[in-house]
Amino acid sequence: MAQLQTDVAIVGAGPAGLMLAHLLHNAGIESVVIDNRSRDDIAHTHRAGILEAGSVRMLEAAGVESRVHTDGHRHDGIDIRVNGASNHFDFPELVGESVWLYPQNEIFVDLSAARERTGRPTYYSVTDTRLGDVETEHPWVAATTSEGDELCIDARYVVGADGSRGPCRSMIPDGTRQRFFHEYPFAWFGILCEAPPSHEVLIYSRSERGFALISQRSSNVQRMYFQASPDTDVADWSDDRIWSELQARVDGPDGFELNTGPIFDKTVLPFRSAVTEPMQHGSMFLAGDSAHTVPPTGAKGLNLAFADVAVLAPALIKAFKESDAEALAGYSQTATKRVWKAQNFSYQMTRMLHTDPTQDAFETKRSLGELRSILESDHGRRYLAECYTGWPHG
Amino acid sequence: MAQLQTDVAIVGAGPAGLMLAHLLHNAGIESVVIDNRSRDDIAHTHRAGILEAGSVRMLEAAGVESRVHTDGHRHDGIDIRVNGASNHFDFPELVGESVWLYPQNEIFVDLSAARERTGRPTYYSVTDTRLGDVETEHPWVAATTSEGDELCIDARYVVGADGSRGPCRSMIPDGTRQRFFHEYPFAWFGILCEAPPSHEVLIYSRSERGFALISQRSSNVQRMYFQASPDTDVADWSDDRIWSELQARVDGPDGFELNTGPIFDKTVLPFRSAVTEPMQHGSMFLAGDSAHTVPPTGAKGLNLAFADVAVLAPALIKAFKESDAEALAGYSQTATKRVWKAQNFSYQMTRMLHTDPTQDAFETKRSLGELRSILESDHGRRYLAECYTGWPHG
Repeated sequence: MAQLQTDVAIVGAGPAGLMLAHLLHNAGIESVVIDNRSRDDIAHTHRAGILEAGSVRMLEAAGVESRVHTDGHRHDGIDIRVNGASNHFDFPELVGESVWLYPQNEIFVDLSAARERTGRPTYYSVTDTRLGDVETEHPWVAATTSEGDELCIDARYVVGADGSRGPCRSMIPDGTRQRFFHEYPFAWFGILCEAPPSHEVLIYSRSERGFALISQRSSNVQRMYFQASPDTDVADWSDDRIWSELQARVDGPDGFELNTGPIFDKTVLPFRSAVTEPMQHGSMFLAGDSAHTVPPTGAKGLNLAFADVAVLAPALIKAFKESDAEALAGYSQTATKRVWKAQNFSYQMTRMLHTDPTQDAFETKRSLGELRSILESDHGRRYLAECYTGWPHG
Repeated sequence: MAQLQTDVAIVGAGPAGLMLAHLLHNAGIESVVIDNRSRDDIAHTHRAGILEAGSVRMLEAAGVESRVHTDGHRHDGIDIRVNGASNHFDFPELVGESVWLYPQNEIFVDLSAARERTGRPTYYSVTDTRLGDVETEHPWVAATTSEGDELCIDARYVVGADGSRGPCRSMIPDGTRQRFFHEYPFAWFGILCEAPPSHEVLIYSRSERGFALISQRSSNVQRMYFQASPDTDVADWSDDRIWSELQARVDGPDGFELNTGPIFDKTVLPFRSAVTEPMQHGSMFLAGDSAHTVPPTGAKGLNLAFADVAVLAPALIKAFKESDAEALAGYSQTATKRVWKAQNFSYQMTRMLHTDPTQDAFETKRSLGELRSILESDHGRRYLAECYTGWPHG
């Protein structure tokens, strides 16, 4: 049995956990990171792909040797297509910012390499993760390592960066913990395919047949999605049927055509919004998906996790270096302000761009009015561009 | 029986009908206006009070001797109060515009006086209004005058500016007419009272007890509203109870206090959104409430009626003066673009500021996130200010 003593025990080696570990390391604060997934699993889990300007600056400032500038692609906008009519958003012109296409699993590869270089302990593939005494100043995290050893980490603080299904959140007692939840009446059918990009930036397309997102990944692999019923069976969808549905959802008088190719991955993603409050309890703090999940429409998931860390890391550093725990005590209150702005933006983008099988004709017309109101207004376009490229970090 | 021949028969002598009649008169086009209400009734119906900048410019350009600049009050903003915290919107600074507090019934007084000066026929207090042959080039409107005479108006065009309960809308055949409708799970309890203004501009207040609107009318009469259940009985509400409820909804750390006084009018206003499309059929055109009603939260009702007229008047003039009916043929398509933007804005203001007894905790938090997102952003504030002060007229 390994008994470790550290400053911060971090449950979860995703981007939030590893970014936090790196920022703490930079300030000379020790941490132990554990994750129940293998390093290889995390590196091959395809998730979000769009980084806000602030997330990229965070990678830069942290000194992580990220390949975002070499392997990623700067996107100077998005296209919002409404019933076949293209509306280009030029982010640098509208708000002086850009976003970056750089997949979440590549960020993990960068961060896990950076973590390895620090020589600080990281345990992948652990099982049976438990934690306790989070209401005291001596919380602990225990797990079984991949070699079958018992691991017990004594820490001053515990951070739950353990995703939407991790054990940390449930350490907040029932009477204290509030869970806010919203389910949408549809899902996304997502594909990965071998094809050149169809457009230089993401296309968010609203059509009478439903929503479609034409995204990119690299010069020869693309990611695309279309709105589908949550009970859709991927087996019912041949490549031909998928391509004809996707094309129908972007058809327009400009004759825009998708570049097609062999599809090598088909998934149905559920659509939900959830928030847990408070994001802290005693000596434990939640960051990222463990506290909140957003629908993917606004590309906010990973960025929101980084934004949590942008609040939590300096608060922890202040507590250790200056014995001042005030910022830490206010962590949840500070972080949830952005969380609810991001939840709203994701919800609003979702509602404006999808067709809801349960909605009435008034709602369909109203949401088209909302889109028109934003698209026809310079202020509206700037407002949307600001939400998309991200608010400044605390 | 009086048989009249005219260019345009206008059903409804509210602001939309009379403004249209005046613009047609200025272009040398004849009209006959009828209304089933008495002139006195219309002059004493208290309705909307906020004029967009474009509506004021329309009154000026029409050469109506309006008292908007002498008896009205220019408002350079609004205050959005969220759980006791004031957020001032400075419209001239944000979008270079202002709005005017000038009650709808005063506009009617101005417009009906202007109409009288033209000497063109206007019949108030008519009964049994009928119309027909609207699919031909010889539509007619008939009614019984207040003296009991039969009135038959033969016209080239008919305009239905006859409000939400008038007969014109139903002339569009069932298969063609679409009605979009949304009902809200609350109403407004409105009062008129003798008191000095509590603030220089309107206060839209969201509180945990529900919404309140602190409006003004004149130096010694004020208009205020608070969100209530649609089945509220005014008899259950003493003046004391009303004042304590209103005050509770604006209470905040700034110690803001309402100026109170005797309440001389109490009403419960239902809350609904409705749109009829198309806004035209054959030789008949709808304008204002006959085609659309909005909840009062965005102050759009009267302004939207004027905006309809701003599209319809030049289209009619072009048809008569240049025998070019193309703009007239596209009237509904042009007008409904703004209608749906205004519907969306009214809906959005309503949703952001009211507490909905049917909504879940996620929705309450999300809408607070929406408010924060707008209030904390310069672009968001400009976008809201632009929607409120009004988009440019076609």
